[in-house]
Amino acid sequence: MSGALIEQVKLNDSLDEWMAAVECAMFAATDSDVQILREASRHILSAGGKRVRPRLLLLSYLALGGRDLAQVAKPAAAIELMHTASVVHDDINDHGTLRRGRPSVNALWGRTFALLTGDFLFTAVYELMAPYHDLNIDLATAATGLVEGETLQASAVKNRTFTREAYMEIIAKKTAALFQAAGAIGAKLARANKSEVSILSAFGFNLGLAFQLVDDILDLVADESKLGKTSGIDLSQGRGVAVAMNDVRSNGNAPRMDPLDEIRQKMMEDDTLAKAREQADQLVNSAIASLAALDDSPAKSALIDFARQIIDRDN
Amino acid sequence: MSGALIEQVKLNDSLDEWMAAVECAMFAATDSDVQILREASRHILSAGGKRVRPRLLLLSYLALGGRDLAQVAKPAAAIELMHTASVVHDDINDHGTLRRGRPSVNALWGRTFALLTGDFLFTAVYELMAPYHDLNIDLATAATGLVEGETLQASAVKNRTFTREAYMEIIAKKTAALFQAAGAIGAKLARANKSEVSILSAFGFNLGLAFQLVDDILDLVADESKLGKTSGIDLSQGRGVAVAMNDVRSNGNAPRMDPLDEIRQKMMEDDTLAKAREQADQLVNSAIASLAALDDSPAKSALIDFARQIIDRDN
Repeated sequence: MSGALIEQVKLNDSLDEWMAAVECAMFAATDSDVQILREASRHILSAGGKRVRPRLLLLSYLALGGRDLAQVAKPAAAIELMHTASVVHDDINDHGTLRRGRPSVNALWGRTFALLTGDFLFTAVYELMAPYHDLNIDLATAATGLVEGETLQASAVKNRTFTREAYMEIIAKKTAALFQAAGAIGAKLARANKSEVSILSAFGFNLGLAFQLVDDILDLVADESKLGKTSGIDLSQGRGVAVAMNDVRSNGNAPRMDPLDEIRQKMMEDDTLAKAREQADQLVNSAIASLAALDDSPAKSALIDFARQIIDRDN
Repeated sequence: MSGALIEQVKLNDSLDEWMAAVECAMFAATDSDVQILREASRHILSAGGKRVRPRLLLLSYLALGGRDLAQVAKPAAAIELMHTASVVHDDINDHGTLRRGRPSVNALWGRTFALLTGDFLFTAVYELMAPYHDLNIDLATAATGLVEGETLQASAVKNRTFTREAYMEIIAKKTAALFQAAGAIGAKLARANKSEVSILSAFGFNLGLAFQLVDDILDLVADESKLGKTSGIDLSQGRGVAVAMNDVRSNGNAPRMDPLDEIRQKMMEDDTLAKAREQADQLVNSAIASLAALDDSPAKSALIDFARQIIDRDN
């Protein structure tokens, strides 16, 4: 094997090891004496999920020269727990019954305990991050963005103002903010300089937008068994990329037909999904281009591969 | 006026001023661009409430010689916002429609937005506290305790194991933990030594237990207009001090009569409420006694008065 290839194999081995450490940190952080909280948290955590956010944090750290696993496992765990908290609360509001191929917390434990499990995951993040003084601003800002994005989405659906502009603002807050924090925190842990932190921060942000676009496309086209969660939920709730691309806006008049049927019909005529797909590709390309200023390394190559995988996936 | 009296008047004036600064900090922290989050947060915040937790933090700070308002307003605001977040989520789970004399967030904005408003208040705490490095452990631990306490309560009700022991564990976590954090954080901000921090921490904890006992008694005896929230909710939900004092435990057999009617009947025969009242008095007395090691000062006197008011109240 060439030297570069050996480096690549070594990197992948250590990535697997590091991700295992992240899993351990998540399990340790949710080891509550309260049985329901422990069991419900671990039900959703052990179901897997793609772990894109902690992976992005680790790769950002590595790409900027970081090498100390002990430093990054907990912040990486915190970022996945934050996402998991929001997923548990989402499933309450959306009545989602399937998540990561398993019944949702909501479906198994009921609404009251699902609400409390989401809260618990939130406070677990807070506890886990407390010793990481300077990183809390990044994660706290992203957490507020996440909740704001979910709220904007729910009100856009309610008021039938799910326009393209609203959609981009929503996914920027509900998804890209946490990806941005993952990039920035990874860079900061590697003691990167300000300009490097900005590069990874912007990289994460663009990747987050692309990830959500692809997620919304998959929600429409993939089947539930592959997706591992209730599919078609966006459209049935009057939101998501298909709704936004068709610029659903209340015009004050009563609609002539069911707005969702209207969108389904339009989707058949238009090339809505192809347009969304193209936008995701552009975002990932621009994210990758922004890494040009960083020195080449196996970790940087892995970060680029990771970005490509974000859009080339079927679940 | 005597010198001591003048000191006391000055202290009360500055307390009012400081509490106003806490209100400002809470409003600033909830100034979201997202209209619903801003309006729903301010709806519940502007309804008032007793503000016992930030007041305890301020008085702990003052009693240990702290004098810098700029240092304490934000942590005090954070502690009240944490409590408010849990209140908003409680009202979802309990179907509470009245809170602080106003319709609950839940009643006005519906469940989805109430859930997100509670989440937002949580993330606002996280953002607000991010710069206060060493205090985050205290508040994060209390936050987890709070959620664990609420969960223990909900499962004790569900499994009909609402015993006296379970009740004390529940109120220790859901209420006393945050009071304990208020005392400890106030002391730490005043740069108190470890033994002083422990004194204020234990003081807060005992006061929190007493506060919750009195709250639960008031839930049974006060009328809604005075209480400002849906009353009798504990008993109707099969929890609270009256249920615990009667040691409700599932015995595996079907109950002969409605368990809540059973408790109501027992309460009439027994002196349940008098016993709970006595326990609250003892806790406050022991909290006050634990302050003996601190130097006397107008602020210490104010802290003692505050502890007495916690149990001598009718709402």
